[in-house]
Amino acid sequence: MKAAVLHAAGDLRLEERAAPVAGPREVLVEIAVVGVCGSDVHYYEHGRIGARVVRGPHVLGHEASGRVAALGEGATRHAVGDRVALEPGVPCGRCRECRTGRYNLCRDVAFLGAPPTDGAFRRFVALHEDFVFALPDAVSDAAGALLEPLSVGIWACRRAGVAAGDRVLVTGAGPIGLLALQVARAAGAVEVAVTDVNERRLSLALETGATVVARAGDPLVFEADVLIECSGHPAALAAGIRALRPAGTAVVVGMGYDDETAVPLALIQGRELWLTGTFRYTGTYPAAIALAASGAVDLEAIVTGRVGLDDTEAALRAGREDPHSVKVLVEPGA
Amino acid sequence: MKAAVLHAAGDLRLEERAAPVAGPREVLVEIAVVGVCGSDVHYYEHGRIGARVVRGPHVLGHEASGRVAALGEGATRHAVGDRVALEPGVPCGRCRECRTGRYNLCRDVAFLGAPPTDGAFRRFVALHEDFVFALPDAVSDAAGALLEPLSVGIWACRRAGVAAGDRVLVTGAGPIGLLALQVARAAGAVEVAVTDVNERRLSLALETGATVVARAGDPLVFEADVLIECSGHPAALAAGIRALRPAGTAVVVGMGYDDETAVPLALIQGRELWLTGTFRYTGTYPAAIALAASGAVDLEAIVTGRVGLDDTEAALRAGREDPHSVKVLVEPGA
Amino acid sequence: MKAAVLHAAGDLRLEERAAPVAGPREVLVEIAVVGVCGSDVHYYEHGRIGARVVRGPHVLGHEASGRVAALGEGATRHAVGDRVALEPGVPCGRCRECRTGRYNLCRDVAFLGAPPTDGAFRRFVALHEDFVFALPDAVSDAAGALLEPLSVGIWACRRAGVAAGDRVLVTGAGPIGLLALQVARAAGAVEVAVTDVNERRLSLALETGATVVARAGDPLVFEADVLIECSGHPAALAAGIRALRPAGTAVVVGMGYDDETAVPLALIQGRELWLTGTFRYTGTYPAAIALAASGAVDLEAIVTGRVGLDDTEAALRAGREDPHSVKVLVEPGA
Amino acid sequence: MKAAVLHAAGDLRLEERAAPVAGPREVLVEIAVVGVCGSDVHYYEHGRIGARVVRGPHVLGHEASGRVAALGEGATRHAVGDRVALEPGVPCGRCRECRTGRYNLCRDVAFLGAPPTDGAFRRFVALHEDFVFALPDAVSDAAGALLEPLSVGIWACRRAGVAAGDRVLVTGAGPIGLLALQVARAAGAVEVAVTDVNERRLSLALETGATVVARAGDPLVFEADVLIECSGHPAALAAGIRALRPAGTAVVVGMGYDDETAVPLALIQGRELWLTGTFRYTGTYPAAIALAASGAVDLEAIVTGRVGLDDTEAALRAGREDPHSVKVLVEPGA
Repeated sequence: MKAAVLHAAGDLRLEERAAPVAGPREVLVEIAVVGVCGSDVHYYEHGRIGARVVRGPHVLGHEASGRVAALGEGATRHAVGDRVALEPGVPCGRCRECRTGRYNLCRDVAFLGAPPTDGAFRRFVALHEDFVFALPDAVSDAAGALLEPLSVGIWACRRAGVAAGDRVLVTGAGPIGLLALQVARAAGAVEVAVTDVNERRLSLALETGATVVARAGDPLVFEADVLIECSGHPAALAAGIRALRPAGTAVVVGMGYDDETAVPLALIQGRELWLTGTFRYTGTYPAAIALAASGAVDLEAIVTGRVGLDDTEAALRAGREDPHSVKVLVEPGA
Repeated sequence: MKAAVLHAAGDLRLEERAAPVAGPREVLVEIAVVGVCGSDVHYYEHGRIGARVVRGPHVLGHEASGRVAALGEGATRHAVGDRVALEPGVPCGRCRECRTGRYNLCRDVAFLGAPPTDGAFRRFVALHEDFVFALPDAVSDAAGALLEPLSVGIWACRRAGVAAGDRVLVTGAGPIGLLALQVARAAGAVEVAVTDVNERRLSLALETGATVVARAGDPLVFEADVLIECSGHPAALAAGIRALRPAGTAVVVGMGYDDETAVPLALIQGRELWLTGTFRYTGTYPAAIALAASGAVDLEAIVTGRVGLDDTEAALRAGREDPHSVKVLVEPGA
Repeated sequence: MKAAVLHAAGDLRLEERAAPVAGPREVLVEIAVVGVCGSDVHYYEHGRIGARVVRGPHVLGHEASGRVAALGEGATRHAVGDRVALEPGVPCGRCRECRTGRYNLCRDVAFLGAPPTDGAFRRFVALHEDFVFALPDAVSDAAGALLEPLSVGIWACRRAGVAAGDRVLVTGAGPIGLLALQVARAAGAVEVAVTDVNERRLSLALETGATVVARAGDPLVFEADVLIECSGHPAALAAGIRALRPAGTAVVVGMGYDDETAVPLALIQGRELWLTGTFRYTGTYPAAIALAASGAVDLEAIVTGRVGLDDTEAALRAGREDPHSVKVLVEPGA
Repeated sequence: MKAAVLHAAGDLRLEERAAPVAGPREVLVEIAVVGVCGSDVHYYEHGRIGARVVRGPHVLGHEASGRVAALGEGATRHAVGDRVALEPGVPCGRCRECRTGRYNLCRDVAFLGAPPTDGAFRRFVALHEDFVFALPDAVSDAAGALLEPLSVGIWACRRAGVAAGDRVLVTGAGPIGLLALQVARAAGAVEVAVTDVNERRLSLALETGATVVARAGDPLVFEADVLIECSGHPAALAAGIRALRPAGTAVVVGMGYDDETAVPLALIQGRELWLTGTFRYTGTYPAAIALAASGAVDLEAIVTGRVGLDDTEAALRAGREDPHSVKVLVEPGA
C-alpha cells in the first residue's frame, strides 16, 4: 500500500507500507478522498503542534472518505463496498468526559493523523465501525471527506447556540470559517458578516451565504449575537468580542493562540458575555451528513484543488504558496 | 372609525366608533391588514375561550400591521408614516414572569382582541411604542400581520430547541403548523414530516418545505428529534410522542385540550422525553421580521383570501365553510 | 458461592453457584451490602417488569457495595481490598445515546439484576472497573449500597434543575422520594413538601429535611418550582402538576404508570410547564459519593432492617408485610 | 432628613435634605441598615467608577433595608410599618434586555447610589414597590441589607451552574467571595476552596464553610468544576482558570479588570471551558430572602462593624485602614 509518510518537519516521503488489517469491530476502508487541513500543514512544516510531536515516521490526514474494503471480527454495521466517511477520533467510551457526552475531551482518544495514530494519506485505513458513517448518494466522496471540517463548524454553531434569526460574525474565512458561515446560515442566521485579509476568500464568503464582508481591521458596524472566531488572531478576537450584543457568545475556533491572550474582560463582565473555545467536536456526523445531503450546505464550494497521493506534498504547500487556495483534496486511489 | 364588533356568539356588527387616542408612549396605528386566527373564530362562534368571556361589545383581531398615524406623549421610537407590525400583548414588565423573561405568562398582560382588550378589526389601534415594530420594505403588510402566527411557530421551535440537522414532526397543518414547518426548515431541520386530515393542507406543506407528509392516523415511519403538535387532537399528540427518539422533545401548540388528556407516560419516562406547551411567545418579533425579510420564510404562501372590513364575518366563517381556506386576511382600509 | 436465585415469581432459592471470574478490565467484588429495591420486589412477586421477563434462574439486586477481591486482566483503577460501590449499569459506550452523554438510555446496557444480567444477591460480582467506585472512610458499606437509589434522586433533581432557594414538592415518601428530598435540600431547596399515605414515612420525611408534609389527597397550599413524583399514582402526579408555578418542571420518577396516563395538559400549555421522566441516571456516582461523604445527605436514615443472604426472601417481603419498613439491606457476608 | 453626601472624591458631608416623596407605585422606606460596598469606597476615593462620574452632590449606598413609612399612589403591595429590603436597581421593563429576563443589562436602569441616582446613606428612600421585598422575622435588618451582596453571590453561582456535588474555587475572600462561598455550599458544593492574601479573611472563610483555604499565589491542588473569581486580580483569574476541569466554568465577579486582560486562551479552547462575568444580578431577591430565612446562609457572619450615619466616612475608610474589616454597616436611624 502506498502512503505519504512524514519523517520530520518538511520531510515527506511516498513509501510502500503493509496495509492495515481490520481488528475486532473495525472496518477496513479504501480511502477515496482526504482533505488537507491547516493542522496537517502545521505538522508538515514544524513537526509538531504544541506538545504533540511527530517522533518517527508518521502519516497525516484526518478528513477522509472511502469505500468499505473488509470487515473485522464482529463488525456488523457496514457492508463491503459501502461508501463511507470516517469520524477520525475514537474515544475510550468510559471516562468522565466520555460518560458526560463530551468525548472530544477524552484523554485516551485515538485521532487519525495526530501522533502517534497514523492518518489517512494512504490507500487503506482501519477504524472502529461506530465511527464509520454510510454516505447517501447525494454526498460525494469529496463532500464525505469534508464532513470533518463541517463538523468543526457545526460544533462551533452548537456551542454558540446559533438560532433562527440570529446575526453571526465569523472572523477568518479559511475552510473552517467558510463552513461555519454555511452552518450558521443553515441554522437560520439571517445576517452573517465575515472578515478576512484575503479578498479571494471574502468573495467566496459572499458566494456562499455571507450577507456582508469586510477586510479584517476595517471598521464594521455590526451587532452580533454570536462571534465565531476562526482566524487565530487576537486582534480579530478582541474586535469580534466588542461587536457582541449584551449576553452574546464568542466561540474561539481558530488555532495558534498563546496561553496568555488579552481579551476585553471588563466588557465580558459588563455585558455578561460568554466566551468559550472548541476542541474538535462530538456527535456531529449525523447532522453533517444530513446537512450535506439536503443541500443546506455546499461542501464542494470550498474545494480549490485535487491531486493524487503522489502530490500530497504539493497539496500541503498549496495554502502557503497560492493565495487563491482554500481547500485541497488528495485522492489516494487516483 | 369603522369597526367589526362582536356583541355575542355569532353576532358581529359593523359599527362606527370613536378612534382611539395614543396615550403616553403609545403609537396610533392605521391598520392595513389583520389576519384571522382560529381563536378569533372560536370567540365568534362561542363567545368565549375557556374562562375568558366576551361580556360586552368587543373587537377581535390580533394579527395586525399598518402605518403610524400619530404619536402619543413621549413616544420617540417611531415616526408618522412608518410601516409597522404590532406585537399584540403588552405585559406589566414588573412581575416575576416579566422579570425572568417569560412575559407571555404575565397575568396582567393586555392582549389585543382578548377580552376585555379590543383588537384590530377596526381602522385604528393605539399600542405602546415598544410593542410596535418597524417593517423593512421586504416585508409586505400581509406578511407584517402574519408575523404574529409566525411568532407562535418561532416560539415552538425555540422551546423545542430545533437545531441544524434535526428531524421534526409537525402534527396539524393549519396556519400555525404550516408556519412551524417553515421555521423548523429555516432553523436547519433537514427532514420535516407533516400530518393532517386535509389533503389540501398537506399539499401546501409539501410546497412550503415538508419533506414527507401523511394523512393523520396513517402509519408514518419517522423518528423525530422534535414533535410540534398543532392539531389539538390527543391521538395526534400520542402518536407524535411515540415517534420521538430517546430524549426527544414534544411541544404542544394546538388548542382545545382538556385538562385531563392521556399521554404515553411510561414512554416519556423510559425514553426521558420532554413535554411542554406554548402560550403565545416572548421576544420573537425581531427574529420574525428578520426571517421574513431574508426570505427564509414565505408568509404569503399560506394566504388563501383577502377581504375588506365589511366582510369580516365572512372571513371568520371561511375556515368552517371552505376546506381550502387556510389564512384569510382582513384589510380595514380597503 | 452462595446466591439467592429467583426461579419464577415467588420462587426464590438459596443455592451454591460458582463464583464469577473477573474478565478483561473487570473487578471481582465481594459484596458487603445490597439494598432491596421496589423493582426487586416486583420481579420477585410477578417474575417480570413490563417486557423484561425472568426466563430462567436469575439473581436480583443492584444496590451494592463491597470489597475488591480480584482484578481482571488490564484492570488498573482499583486494588484488592479497596472498599467500593457498584454502579450497576454498564453501557456500550458507542451508540448515539452513549455518545451524547445519556448512557442510561443505551439499548445495550448490562444492568445488574435486570434479566438476563445477574445481580448482587450473592457473595461475588464481577464488573467493569470504570463502574466501580472507591468509597472514602466516611461512607459506610450500607451507605455505599444506597448510592444507587441516591443516584436516582440526584438524577431527578438534576433533570428538574433544582437550585438554591427553590421550593420542591415530592409526592411519595418511599426510599426514592425520601432520598430525592435529601438531595433537593442539599441542592439548596429551602422548602420541600412531601406527601404520602403512610404516616410513618411522613414522620421520617420531617426528620430528614421536609419543611412540610401532608397526607396524599389532603389539600396542600404550596406553590412549587419543581415536582418530583415518586409515588407512581396518577392522582398524585396531577395534583403535583397543578401545584407548579408558571414555567415549573415536573419529573416523574415513580414506576407503574400506564402508557396512557391523564395529565393536566391545558395547564401544561397555559403555564408552559415542563414534564419529563427519569430512567435510571447517568454520571451521578461521583456526586453521590461526595454528598454522602460530606454529610450533606444521610443515607442510613432510611434503613429499617438488615438481614443475611439467607433471609433475602424475608427482605423482599418486608415492604409488603411491614408498613414501617422503608429500606432493608441484605448482607451476603454476614 | 440627614444624608451623607459626596461632593467630590474624598469630600463627604453630613447634610440636611428634604425627604423624598413616594411617587406613583413607589414606597417610601425609612432606612434601617446600609452596607458599605467596595464600589461605595471606590466612588468615595476616586469620585468615579470608569465612565460613571460623580458630577454633583451625590448620595452613595445601595445595600439597604428598612421600614415602610409611606405609600405612593397606586402602591398596594406593602403596608406602612412592614420590614423590607430594597433591590436597588429599577430597570425600564421594556427593552430587549428587560424582555429577555436580563434586566440587569438594561441601559435605562436607575440604581441606588450609582450617579445620578441617589443612594441609601440617608434616612429615607423612595423606590418602586415591585423592587421592595418584605422581610420575614428570621431575617434581621442587617441581613436584609446584605441580601444585596448575597444576590451577587447567588447570581455568580447561577451563571456558573453550581450543582449538588460540585467542587468550587473562590478566589478572593472579600464580602462577595465570602458570600459566594456560602451560596455555593447552600447549592450543594461539597468542596469549596478559597484563596486570598488576607489570613483573617481565610479564617473567616473556614468558619463559614470553606473546606480548604490557601494564600493567593501558593500552590493549590484542587480540580474545580467552577471558578468564582472575586479578587479582581488577573493572576488569580489565570490560576483559577487553570484549576478548572474540562468543560468547567469561570465566572468573573471581581471588579477592576482592564479591558485588555490576559487569559489562558489555549487552555479555554483545549478544555472547552466557559468564561463569563457578572454585572449585578436579576431575579435573586426571593431566593436570597429564602436562603437567609432558612439559615442556609449566615449573613451576619461577615459583619465586622456598625456605625451611625454620622460615621459614614469612617465606614468608607474602614476597609482601607483596618485589615480585619470585612463588612461595615451604617445605621441611619441609630
